[in-house]
Amino acid sequence: MGRWEPDARGRLGRAALELYLDPGYEQTTVADIAARAGVTERTFFRHFADKREVLFAGSAAFQETVLDAIAAQPDGSTAFAVAAAGMDAAAAFIAGNPDPTFARRRAAVIAANASLQERELLKLATVASASATALTARGFEPEEAAIAAEAAMAAFRLAFERWIASDGGLDLRELLAEGVARFRSLA
Amino acid sequence: MGRWEPDARGRLGRAALELYLDPGYEQTTVADIAARAGVTERTFFRHFADKREVLFAGSAAFQETVLDAIAAQPDGSTAFAVAAAGMDAAAAFIAGNPDPTFARRRAAVIAANASLQERELLKLATVASASATALTARGFEPEEAAIAAEAAMAAFRLAFERWIASDGGLDLRELLAEGVARFRSLA
Repeated sequence: MGRWEPDARGRLGRAALELYLDPGYEQTTVADIAARAGVTERTFFRHFADKREVLFAGSAAFQETVLDAIAAQPDGSTAFAVAAAGMDAAAAFIAGNPDPTFARRRAAVIAANASLQERELLKLATVASASATALTARGFEPEEAAIAAEAAMAAFRLAFERWIASDGGLDLRELLAEGVARFRSLA
Repeated sequence: MGRWEPDARGRLGRAALELYLDPGYEQTTVADIAARAGVTERTFFRHFADKREVLFAGSAAFQETVLDAIAAQPDGSTAFAVAAAGMDAAAAFIAGNPDPTFARRRAAVIAANASLQERELLKLATVASASATALTARGFEPEEAAIAAEAAMAAFRLAFERWIASDGGLDLRELLAEGVARFRSLA
């Protein structure tokens, strides 16, 4: 290994995910991840705060995708339509990952560990809250914005679960559209 | 202090909440809680797995309240109406606590700590999931049940936030009813 480490971050992320699946998240240390990626522990900590955060490295890009889509919606849409468009962009972002198995492998690791599930829920709640703020900035009332953002996020979460359960056989964006339609028919 | 410790569990819970507010959750040890409650650490661990779980000791009763209400709804209601009735029972359960400041003080502790927020979200997600299962058992389709349960839980969460922000000045059940009505008008 030379001093120059091309894509150390990407290699660390891939190495971590492999190890979190086998032998498992609890059993894996930062030293193990660094060794498999062929870098030092110090390099690991230049990219990630701890081993948990490797799994949440995409959170900022995920949220940005949602907020960009919310900002790009035409005027005259309902709060829920705008929020749903934000989550549709998120679905496209996830389904468009160059590694088609990434989301499923990551979900398997998270499903096996309560503290990771909790962290994932906080991530999604944070995105829903940021979406509500973005909707408010577009002129919707805060309460309408909050409900719309939470509904869109719940539709996304359920669609994502079904997508994972289908092993990627179903289409995430279609599942989301179905869930959004179901929310619309709750009355 | 005699060997017989009346309501050790209740005293431990109250002592923990006081200490989590001042000096703070991170700063408080199990030994501190036991000392303030006038019991041994061993007694603490007879009642709670760790200091975090003191804050979630009511989770089982909370979920049972929701599921009982779901089971008690008359036939012919929509999935969302049944799920919302479950969360209304939860709101009554919380608002009916003999200590009117308990929920707010607990919420303040949780709001100050990311890992507690995560745990709280997992608790609520677990209740939503159990609600969906209970709705399915009542004959609703699994996907309709999941959407209804998530929507009712989101309405509850937002109502609870508003209630806490109002310092108890608003009525939790009314806030929930407003949120449920907003979900119904999402279309």
